[in-house]
Formats: sequence, structure tokens, C-alpha cells
Amino acid sequence: MNSVQIEDQIRQLALLNADAMYQDDFLLTWDRSDEEIAAVFKTAEILWSMRRKNISPRAFDSGLAISLFRDNSTRTRFSFSSASNLLGLTVQDLDEEKSQIAHGETVRETANMVSFMADVIGIRDDMYIGKGNAYMREVSKAVSQGYVAGILEQRPTLVNLQCDIDHPTQSMADALHLIQHFGGIEKLRGKKIAMSWAYSPSYGKPLSVPQGIVGLMTRFGMDVTLAHPEGYGIMPEVETIAKRNAETSGGSFTKTDSMAEAFEDTDIVYPKSWAPFNAMEKRTELYGNNDMDDIKALEKELLAQNAKFKEWECTETLMDLTKNKRALYMHCLPADITGVSCTQGEVAASVFDRFRDPLYMEASFKPYAIAAMIFLAKFSNPVEKLLQIHQRGQNRVL
Amino acid sequence: MNSVQIEDQIRQLALLNADAMYQDDFLLTWDRSDEEIAAVFKTAEILWSMRRKNISPRAFDSGLAISLFRDNSTRTRFSFSSASNLLGLTVQDLDEEKSQIAHGETVRETANMVSFMADVIGIRDDMYIGKGNAYMREVSKAVSQGYVAGILEQRPTLVNLQCDIDHPTQSMADALHLIQHFGGIEKLRGKKIAMSWAYSPSYGKPLSVPQGIVGLMTRFGMDVTLAHPEGYGIMPEVETIAKRNAETSGGSFTKTDSMAEAFEDTDIVYPKSWAPFNAMEKRTELYGNNDMDDIKALEKELLAQNAKFKEWECTETLMDLTKNKRALYMHCLPADITGVSCTQGEVAASVFDRFRDPLYMEASFKPYAIAAMIFLAKFSNPVEKLLQIHQRGQNRVL
Amino acid sequence: MNSVQIEDQIRQLALLNADAMYQDDFLLTWDRSDEEIAAVFKTAEILWSMRRKNISPRAFDSGLAISLFRDNSTRTRFSFSSASNLLGLTVQDLDEEKSQIAHGETVRETANMVSFMADVIGIRDDMYIGKGNAYMREVSKAVSQGYVAGILEQRPTLVNLQCDIDHPTQSMADALHLIQHFGGIEKLRGKKIAMSWAYSPSYGKPLSVPQGIVGLMTRFGMDVTLAHPEGYGIMPEVETIAKRNAETSGGSFTKTDSMAEAFEDTDIVYPKSWAPFNAMEKRTELYGNNDMDDIKALEKELLAQNAKFKEWECTETLMDLTKNKRALYMHCLPADITGVSCTQGEVAASVFDRFRDPLYMEASFKPYAIAAMIFLAKFSNPVEKLLQIHQRGQNRVL
Repeated sequence: MNSVQIEDQIRQLALLNADAMYQDDFLLTWDRSDEEIAAVFKTAEILWSMRRKNISPRAFDSGLAISLFRDNSTRTRFSFSSASNLLGLTVQDLDEEKSQIAHGETVRETANMVSFMADVIGIRDDMYIGKGNAYMREVSKAVSQGYVAGILEQRPTLVNLQCDIDHPTQSMADALHLIQHFGGIEKLRGKKIAMSWAYSPSYGKPLSVPQGIVGLMTRFGMDVTLAHPEGYGIMPEVETIAKRNAETSGGSFTKTDSMAEAFEDTDIVYPKSWAPFNAMEKRTELYGNNDMDDIKALEKELLAQNAKFKEWECTETLMDLTKNKRALYMHCLPADITGVSCTQGEVAASVFDRFRDPLYMEASFKPYAIAAMIFLAKFSNPVEKLLQIHQRGQNRVL
Repeated sequence: MNSVQIEDQIRQLALLNADAMYQDDFLLTWDRSDEEIAAVFKTAEILWSMRRKNISPRAFDSGLAISLFRDNSTRTRFSFSSASNLLGLTVQDLDEEKSQIAHGETVRETANMVSFMADVIGIRDDMYIGKGNAYMREVSKAVSQGYVAGILEQRPTLVNLQCDIDHPTQSMADALHLIQHFGGIEKLRGKKIAMSWAYSPSYGKPLSVPQGIVGLMTRFGMDVTLAHPEGYGIMPEVETIAKRNAETSGGSFTKTDSMAEAFEDTDIVYPKSWAPFNAMEKRTELYGNNDMDDIKALEKELLAQNAKFKEWECTETLMDLTKNKRALYMHCLPADITGVSCTQGEVAASVFDRFRDPLYMEASFKPYAIAAMIFLAKFSNPVEKLLQIHQRGQNRVL
Repeated sequence: MNSVQIEDQIRQLALLNADAMYQDDFLLTWDRSDEEIAAVFKTAEILWSMRRKNISPRAFDSGLAISLFRDNSTRTRFSFSSASNLLGLTVQDLDEEKSQIAHGETVRETANMVSFMADVIGIRDDMYIGKGNAYMREVSKAVSQGYVAGILEQRPTLVNLQCDIDHPTQSMADALHLIQHFGGIEKLRGKKIAMSWAYSPSYGKPLSVPQGIVGLMTRFGMDVTLAHPEGYGIMPEVETIAKRNAETSGGSFTKTDSMAEAFEDTDIVYPKSWAPFNAMEKRTELYGNNDMDDIKALEKELLAQNAKFKEWECTETLMDLTKNKRALYMHCLPADITGVSCTQGEVAASVFDRFRDPLYMEASFKPYAIAAMIFLAKFSNPVEKLLQIHQRGQNRVL
């Protein structure tokens, strides 16, 4: 990768229309056009290339990036920190205790009060069905109002760091991994990917990863299979989106209740546990009523239900069913590894071990995906700005 | 606002003598001369203008801004973060648990240990009468000693982010809001402001806001009325300062026990709950003795006392008494809004709603007030430095 | 100190071979050659001189410095923050709760996940014998693997901010203090230092300070005496290192069970409490078994044992035994001061008070020691880079 190649990449970005991303948020991948999605990939690649060549893509001399995590997350926290820092923004955590979380005017007020000098707000809120994405939209509306009213000098852009519906920074990083692995976004056409449920001894894992994967990967002409046991369905709305995407892109979206069937002759496998959508909806309702006895009963019931599907594990035997026995194994991490992090889990230790380096590489794209989303939202002329950064040639490290 | 206007503003700053602010702290507005107060306003306006024109007023290539919050505060935390970040300083939180708080030599030691590379220390300590400001002065003395002894390479400047006596970053931001609203500091002369107690269902709200307001607004030739029910008096020392200020400035300071009387024909209303000074003194004593039963009894007594004054609410009827029925409504936020955040509170929802945008605007000046205090304390020649920043013309955002 | 002197210092640094520090960690002072130790001192002095002359030694335009503290520490936290900030790195805390701490693959995974844009990782892990340094080496191995595999664009360097074996940032800062106090590293030759146990009413203080001191000071041709009551021995491995160092450097390493004997005619005293090594080993084992009853019994036993040695206090009488009655008193702070922070402790109030300024000065070198360790690990050509920084002449404060 040399300078000429970076300029080539920037010229490729110039061919993509991402104008509508300016001053907007990144909340769901299916809110964004194919060209916008491609522009995020391209921008991420440019930022990645620059940093590898020790060119600092700092675009802000000062400015805050607010992080609001309603769930603990070391990985996402560091990805957001890294992306913000790379662009010159300083992270300020907004520690909103659960008890203080409110909606309506309180959200509007807090969103404005913290945003006087904020360029970005990253939110993770994935715990309750119907809540996380809705909350992000409330915050978005609040800061837009504040900006229009002249209260906020700049409109902070929101980045969805995981909600109840989608996990766009994960799925976009996963796609970047596939693009790099297969040698280009156009190479994904016709590739088979199995997004499969897998057994875990834990309970209540979010649906946003499988939903994000089928909602995004169906756009690239891929053959996407969603596999899960009876009763572990995802949000119907997301399935509808996946079907529509597949039709438009010339790919396919199919479902099966057999892990083996999903793995058959596939290029990529993504075995991962999640909670049934219906149960998560019920759980949200129970939490709303503060019904702790029923929550405990539901948890017990779900763990018992999970235990019926212990054979949903990504073993070597299953991997042997895949194309040339060597599909790419993916995971958002951390994984439940049989005999390592639990007695029985999502994946056999030998499978996981073989893919450790690619898995870490997969994760390494997330800071760049986030930085690209921010960049395209903050600049009306990203191509011009990237050229300016490139020509400036400021070293990241002296 | 264009470049010429910024240079004009800087030239106006040059006419004000703020030399004594250099290497000093900002602890109480009445510690500072009228010209110094005016210099803070002018510097805040200059920084505000620069940022709006995308000129970065970064004055530090590195350096720490220590935040020490002995009370939770999202808003003040973000204001301090924003101000520090704007000038190029990095916030490092000092999490001093209550149990570890000590005085004397321990304060001296900790203050020095954390300040080797600290340019600023922002402290919020507003819980106990007689404690917060005294603590700030201990820290100030400690870092001054350390600086004189050559232990600290630079003397960190202290900014009072709220104490038991004053809330200077709030009152200065409020004044900036009035200056902008009425079109200049000289336009405040003769304006009437009602700083009024208001009912709240909560207990023990600090006195620093009303004290800060009457202690500052009396300096601009305004007619300041302090209204509260019998028994809700503020610190006598601050009343003395307000009286003296009013005499000097040609304004007035009057007291009343009627909210309606205070609102009559006034230009500005600031209705806000606070705890009686005497009760807060007693509470501090009880906490000193760790007398939890008596503290609970006092709390119960105060809530019962509060409840006698539920009619102290800023309603539309009361607002109709103000000048042309359209006084400016102010609040430090968050407010107790009747029917919104509580059954009955400080202000009617319709009044609050009409003033939502101005209230948020009022709050937006706080980061600039803090940044201006820091700037004038850190530079012996702020005018020259601001011209240098302006001519440098470094963009905040690429 | 002027520019010429800084260039002189840089030229002196050029005479020292510190090549092996590049891309390596700073975990134990005895892992590093004499020239490397001298290079850290020299680099620290250069950075100190630059900052005093308002030259910003910022070497990173962006980049993270990860802090991982498994024990609370305001002082070390601020030292690490200050050093990172001085060089242009942004601290991101990794809050690893004890329950989540694991070894093996989990460490490998987490270390990679947080390090995609991390240039430095500072770890404090001093609680359990056999654990802290071992953990650091696991993290180091993990990020080295990630770097070699191309997952990490850069290899984050580890800085040991205190472990079970050594406290290199403390001992190196202490040495810088001695160098400055006595006028040069070569002036330390033949000086006597008494590293003495002292009584404290608390329990379980880490051994890393006395171990770090005898492991480092024996390298400069000093006469190092380790004094402690019977049963308060340090790690035998470190004693071996101290002996070997003394032989090589032409100094000496002796032990005594008398504080008075250690103080006799000495130039420097370092009286400080610590827990017996054997007891700490036992405690680690008990914690490993989660054996809370036995832990409490051990604690009680150790406090009783401590109480037998209350006369191990650094009093004026003992100080009078030292060379010309005016040895330099040192401590890593905070000290247990008799009649101030406890009824009876490590040092008499009058002794401590006389040395307050030198003690704070001693502590002030820690940020520079850390920054120097980072600098030498991150640059293959530190001399060239320091000259470049010096010639650039960027002001730290405008």
C-alpha cells in the first residue's frame, strides 16, 4: 500500500454518493443506501491505509465524543475510544444510571446539556426489545432540535454501538473482514454464509448480531442462511428486510432448523447464541412491570429450553460439511468455547483455535468502521477532506 | 460575526484590567473586580465567536485538567470537560471517596501528588455549609506552596464548580445569557430580576445558586429582589455583599416574602428551590457527628416545612404579573416541573415549555465561562495570546 | 537550563546503547542493562528540561495508553496519565473487575481486543505473590503475538506500574531524585542507603518498594543495607539480584535486623512498612482457595506480629545516627506518620515535616520516568526524535 494507492482509494470513494450521511446518524444499516454502505467500507479502508502508513487522519483539533453505555462492554468501549481518538475527539463517558433513565423531555434536556461541544454520541443500549433503538431516535431528535434552534453549535452525530435491532458497527466490521478475506466487495457475490444459532449455557444474549448479519450480508448478492432451532426466531421485521435485500441484490435468504443443513457447502459460518425474540419481548414486559419472580421463572425456562439444543455446537465434524471443508469461521467475540470458557458451548476448542488470528483480525476493523461512520457524517465533502489529510501528511507517530 | 468583530472584541478586552487573575483561582465572583468580571464575559464571547467561526482556541499542546466532584453532576462535568478540551487540556478525574476525604496535610499531599502536570483543578463540593469553599482554599494554598517550592512546574488554577457559598460558573453563564438576551452588559442597568424561592418536593437543594445570583447580578446596576418564605433565608454574609454591590453599582437589593410581589413588573424571574441556611448548618453539624437519626428527623421536618409553601410555583398567573407579561424565565436546570418531573414543583409545565430553548441556551454559556476563567488565570497576556490564536486561524474541524 | 544544555543532554543519551528497549517492555529494572537504566534517567531529564522550557515533547498525534489498575491508586494513576498526556497519548481505563480476571486465552483475547490502537499498556497488579508480574508477561506475550500476526498495527509497550516483585517506576523516580539531590549518577557511588522496614498499624503492604529499591540502588556502587525484624524477609530471588548487582558495581549489599545499625552513618534512609514475604505467599494461597476464615486469622496474626516492632519508627533520635545527622529521608508516599495519620507509624511527624518538600519532589519524577520508559520503547532512534522535537520547538503552553 503506497500513497498512490490511497489516492486511488479516495478517487473510488468519490464515485459513491454518500451525501445523505452528512449530519445524519448511523442507526441501522438498512437505513442507508448501497452506495452509502460502500462509502463506509471505502472510507474505513482509507483510514486504515493511512494509519498503516503513519499518516494521522486527525480531523478535529478539539471536540467531544460522548459514550453512553447501558451495558458493560470493554471491546465496544475501546473500539469507540480508538475511533474517536484517531479523528482527534476526546471521549467523555455519560454515566447514566439505570434508575435515572427516563424518556421524553428528560432525554431531550440531557441530550442538549451534554452536547454543547459534542461532535459524536455513541450509544449502546441492547438490553430490552423495543427500547434501545427507540431511545437512540429520541436522542437524535433532541440534538437535531437543539441544533436547529441554535443551542448546539454543531449537530452531534449518533453511532449505534448496539441496540435491540441492529449492531451496525459489528456487522460492518464483519463485512470489512469478508471484503479483505475474499479480495473485494464484488467477490462476496454468490458466497454462502450460514448465520447459525449455537448453544450457550448463558441466557438472554442479544439478537442484534444475527439480525445485523442477515440484514447486511443479504445486500451483497450473498446466499444467506439463517439457522436456528424451533422457537429461536429473530425479529420478523428484520427477516422481511433480509428477504427484500436478497431480492434486490440477486442473492438469497433462506431459513432452516438444521445447523448441518446450513453448513453444507458454505463459504462462511457464523455460529452464535441468542435468545428467542418472543422470550425477549416477554422479558422486556416483565422488567417493565418489575416482575422479578416471573423474570426468574422465565430465565429458568429459557435455560432449560437452551439445554435441549446442546448439539448446536460448531464442531470439526460440522466444519467438514462446508465448502472444501474450509469455510471461514466468524464470531463477534467473546465466544463460549467448549472445554475452555464453559463445559459445552458454541464452538469446539479446536475450531476456535484454528481461527484465532482471523477472529482477532475481524474485530480489528471495528474502530475503522466507527471512524468511517463518523467521518462521513461530519463532513459534507469527505473526499476533499481525505485528500487534504493525505496531502498534509502529518505523522501519527513522530 | 466576522474576523474584524473578533479583533474588535479582543481590543475591548485590552481595555479591562484583569492582571490579578493571572495565576489566581476563580472561587467567588465577589473576590473579583468589576473589570475582571467583565474580562471573563468578554473572553467567553471571544472564545464563543472563535468556535462558531471554526477557529480552534487551543492554548495547550498537553496538560491535565483535574476534576474533583464530591457530588454527582452530569451537566457540570460536561461543561468542565468541554471547556478543558476546547483549550487543549485533558480531564483526569480524581475520585476521592468520601471516606478518604481529609483535611490538613492529607489535602496538601494529595493536591501536590496529582498536580505535577496539572494546569487546572475544577472542584465541586457543595454538600456541607462551611466546608466546600474552605476545602477549595486548602487545595489552592497547597498547590501555591508546591509551586513556590519548585515541586510543581506550573501552578494549577482552581475553578469553583459549585461550593456551599457560590456557584460562579453558573451565575457567570447566567449573566452571559442576560448580556446576549438584552444586547450588552450595559443594557442590564435598571433591569429587574426576581430571584425567588420555589417549592420542590425534594430536600436539601444547595444555596449556592440563589447566593451566586444575588451576589453577582447586584453588580450591574440591576434591581435584584430576593423572595422566599419566612425561614428560607440565605447566608447573611452574601446578603451583605449583595447590598454593598447594589450601592456601588447604583442598583438595588430588596427582600420580600411574597413571590407575587417579587414578580411584579420584573424583567427576569429565577424561581428555584433551596434549603434554609439555618437547616443546612444544622445538617452539616449532624453529619459531622454522624447523627443519622437526627438527620432523618431533620429531613422529615424540612419536607413538612416545604409542603407549607406549595403555592410558591412559577405559574402563568404569576408570569402575567411581570413586565408586559413577558419576563425572561431562568433556571440552572434541572427544574422540578409540575406534572412532568413531579406532581407539584417549581414551575408550571406551560411556562417551562415556552422557555425551553432559552433555558438550554442559558446553559450553553457555561463551558465558555469556565474556559474564560481558565484562560485569564493561565496567561499573563491574554489579549496577545487571543490575537495570536486568531491570527493562527487553526480550524477546530478540518 | 537552556537549549544548548538540552542538546548536550541529548548528545549524552547518544552515547548509551538502549537499542534493546525498542519494542520491548519495562517490567523489572534488573531486566535492563546499566546503559538502558542510564538512558531512562537521561531521557527523563531531557523531557523534564523540555517541559520546564515550555517545549512540548508530544510524539503522538493520536494513540491510546491503556491503564489497568487492579488496585486503587490515585498517585500512580496521575503519574501514568501525566506521562501519557505529555507524549500525546490518551488514557483509556480498562476496568477489569476481579471476578472477570482470567488467564490463558482470555488474557490473550482481551489484550488484543483493546490494543488495536494502543501504543502503551500500564499495569498495576501488586496484590498477590506470583501473580502480578506473571500476568504482565502474559499480556506482553499476547500483544507480541498479535503484532507478529499483523492483527495489531503497532506493538503496545508494557509499563509495570507496580507488581508483586518490582515497582520500577517508583525506584527509577527515587533514583532520579537521588541523582538530582547528589548532583549526578556518578555521585551515588559510595553513598550509603538504608532500606529499612518500619512499623505500620496496617497489614499486607506490598514488597515491591523495598525489593525495587535494593534491586536498583545496588547498581550504582552504593552501599545498600536492608534492615528488617526477624521474619520480615523479602523475596530471596531479589536478594540474590541485589548481591550480584553490588558485586558488579563495586558497592555492597548487607542485611541487619537493627534499624539503628542500618541508620548508622548513612546518607539516605528509606523507612517503610511491608508484609513478610512468607506470609504474603501464604495469603496468596489462601485467596486462591477462597479461604476467608484462614485469611482473617492470618491478618490478625500479622497485625499482632507487627505490633511487636513498634519501635521500628524513623524518629529524630534515629536520624541523629545518620551521616552528619542529616541523611536524606525518602518514602514512596503516603506514609504512616505518628500522631498524624495514625497513633504510631513509620515516621515521626517532625522528621516527615522537615522532608515534605523533598518528598514531593521525589514523587514529581515519576511521570518523567514513565514517559522516558515509553519513549525508549516506542522509538528505534530516540536521539534523533528528541533532537527533532527540540528543533521543532512547539510550545506546550501557547
